[in-house]
Amino acid sequence: QGVKVINVLDRTFGMHAGGKIEVRSKTPILTPEDFSRVYTPGVGRVCKDIYNEPEHAYNYTIKGNSVAIVTDGTAVLGFGNIGPKAALPVMEGKAMIFKEFAGIDAFPLCLDTTDTEEIIKTVKYLAPVFGAVNLEDIAAPRCFEIEARLMEVLDIPVIHDDQHGTATVVLAGLINVGRLLRKDIRTFRYVVAGAGASATATTNLLISYGVSDIVVCDRTGAIYERRDSGMNHCKTILARKTNPRKVKGTLSEVMTGANVFIGLSGPDLITADDIRRMAPDPIVFALANPDPEIAPEEAQPFVKIMATGRSDYPNQINNALSYPGIFRGLLDVRAKGVNDEIRFAASKAIAYLLNEDELNEENIIPSAFDSRVVTTVADAVAAAAKKTGVARK
Amino acid sequence: QGVKVINVLDRTFGMHAGGKIEVRSKTPILTPEDFSRVYTPGVGRVCKDIYNEPEHAYNYTIKGNSVAIVTDGTAVLGFGNIGPKAALPVMEGKAMIFKEFAGIDAFPLCLDTTDTEEIIKTVKYLAPVFGAVNLEDIAAPRCFEIEARLMEVLDIPVIHDDQHGTATVVLAGLINVGRLLRKDIRTFRYVVAGAGASATATTNLLISYGVSDIVVCDRTGAIYERRDSGMNHCKTILARKTNPRKVKGTLSEVMTGANVFIGLSGPDLITADDIRRMAPDPIVFALANPDPEIAPEEAQPFVKIMATGRSDYPNQINNALSYPGIFRGLLDVRAKGVNDEIRFAASKAIAYLLNEDELNEENIIPSAFDSRVVTTVADAVAAAAKKTGVARK
Repeated sequence: QGVKVINVLDRTFGMHAGGKIEVRSKTPILTPEDFSRVYTPGVGRVCKDIYNEPEHAYNYTIKGNSVAIVTDGTAVLGFGNIGPKAALPVMEGKAMIFKEFAGIDAFPLCLDTTDTEEIIKTVKYLAPVFGAVNLEDIAAPRCFEIEARLMEVLDIPVIHDDQHGTATVVLAGLINVGRLLRKDIRTFRYVVAGAGASATATTNLLISYGVSDIVVCDRTGAIYERRDSGMNHCKTILARKTNPRKVKGTLSEVMTGANVFIGLSGPDLITADDIRRMAPDPIVFALANPDPEIAPEEAQPFVKIMATGRSDYPNQINNALSYPGIFRGLLDVRAKGVNDEIRFAASKAIAYLLNEDELNEENIIPSAFDSRVVTTVADAVAAAAKKTGVARK
Repeated sequence: QGVKVINVLDRTFGMHAGGKIEVRSKTPILTPEDFSRVYTPGVGRVCKDIYNEPEHAYNYTIKGNSVAIVTDGTAVLGFGNIGPKAALPVMEGKAMIFKEFAGIDAFPLCLDTTDTEEIIKTVKYLAPVFGAVNLEDIAAPRCFEIEARLMEVLDIPVIHDDQHGTATVVLAGLINVGRLLRKDIRTFRYVVAGAGASATATTNLLISYGVSDIVVCDRTGAIYERRDSGMNHCKTILARKTNPRKVKGTLSEVMTGANVFIGLSGPDLITADDIRRMAPDPIVFALANPDPEIAPEEAQPFVKIMATGRSDYPNQINNALSYPGIFRGLLDVRAKGVNDEIRFAASKAIAYLLNEDELNEENIIPSAFDSRVVTTVADAVAAAAKKTGVARK
């Protein structure tokens, strides 16, 4: 009881009291006539219509504008595996952002299972109601298989946002680094710290974009083919696709001579010395949240351009820049799936919101609160979906 | 395209365009400060609190006010098995009623499986987000096992509304029949036509209430122990609990001498002659929808009191009288489950909304649009939940 009194007085807890979202009727039910139109017997004609033409679910139900936010609560914020109930406030927050930023009706589904096969089946069974699925805060490596398998079996887009949300915004930031420095970012040497969901997806997206020299480091150091210790199925695949110069060694060692450091790991992993050993004009994206791989104050004297995941420093790589617009665009064309062309389109749309005059070393990425972001990304995504044949309309 | 144009002009289809419900933020997200309070990093403290005290999910998430409307689309309206997509407009309608009548945040989950075990597992996995589960339009006999098994494993109430919603309102109507005729309804002889979800639940609730003489009829006629044909596990159980006089014969035959006929089957199953062979002052609840077991015009000259499921005749037995208030009451006390005492409390609350002066043969049940219904039922349900030890607060 004491705790409750304290928490009501706390502004953050106050904003969460009773939950942050609600399900509402679009129209009131005031009379028996309203009732018989939205419910029995009137609704029967609509059911029949959808039974005869299942695609009409997009016309007459929430399917056309709804996203399932699905988690098993195993990789939540900095906490890790805190379970489905404790994950719910984050998923509600995400649903709020979907609605406020992009007008999307998203509902949080926090699953009381961490079994890969059970999660896949559950999402498959839930799919009829939704126009897209946003997997969220599911631990690696299970998240990769869940996403890949669901993309195969479902006829709606499935996106694990921890992977692709971040990857898309990192690429947007890098595109603007290239514009600013008048360099082709494909020719840079990259070091990625971390081999989890977002690091793997970012690496894959950069490779797909045309980058060829990336060294991914985990706790053990550089990942390379036939490394003895700390490998798993996903890292074996990563090793095959990356590290063309067969570099070995610690993170600190492999940073020597790199153009770009992308941190998607944990706090205080690199030093100012590491940055000084990078190639001239080093680019440092220290994205661990809330505590970056190196404190901006410490890195600043030695970097050309620096980005973090934080709102209190310049160049915030915030996945809220990408997912509201990406899902909006996919829903707008009733997409059957999603692909890298669509992600590139989103990254470019985000990047080119800043014109040459606005672009500078402390402004390589727009704010998630820039009202142009969602519509611009959505339009680019819808066009790319049409171009790549995954749009229904 | 032609169809679409016609449907937009159609008022019922128009009301369904784009779906009938939406998911909304309770507060706007206008600034980065709002963002960091409802999402990262602020939300982290709320997650931690729930991780330490899982029951706090009731305080700081939608769990305290949310209901999952779960269907497999196998017993929808008069259509039967039309599948999850075509069932969605009905479930959205139900979610609207939950919100408009009782302020409950209900979300429709139409499952793409009809397998009993898979449905049970799926609902189990989804439970963390919800304060209660409303199973809907799931075919018998699978609906019985799904409900019973989920009630065992979950610590929130699970109600198959097709069973208990109707049963509760039928009992309310009968309680008022007893008040009006100054008779003890436990002493009546009953014939129930139908052996599906609502017929079985109504029979069970009446027995639990103290009724002893019920004959249940299916297509084959009266159900009795060791009947040869058309039996299944559920009917065998029904046979054991009902028909104490071991009556055999067709529906028409067993109606002879009965005080009450309760039809939960299909259209035009009984005749005026059948009613004339009932005991004096026959009570006829012909509840098949939209076409009752006998047309009210045909029955009227011979009945003492007649009820239907329709809004265009007197005495509408409408389950919208019960479920909004029942779920409201269960959520209000964070109930762990539900039981017959709670259902009796709901039935009595509905019945006694009509005082002696209001009660007459054409007014044995209040309207679902009577604004007192939900709060009165909710209060009675909450009190009964506390009394029977299933309330958390």
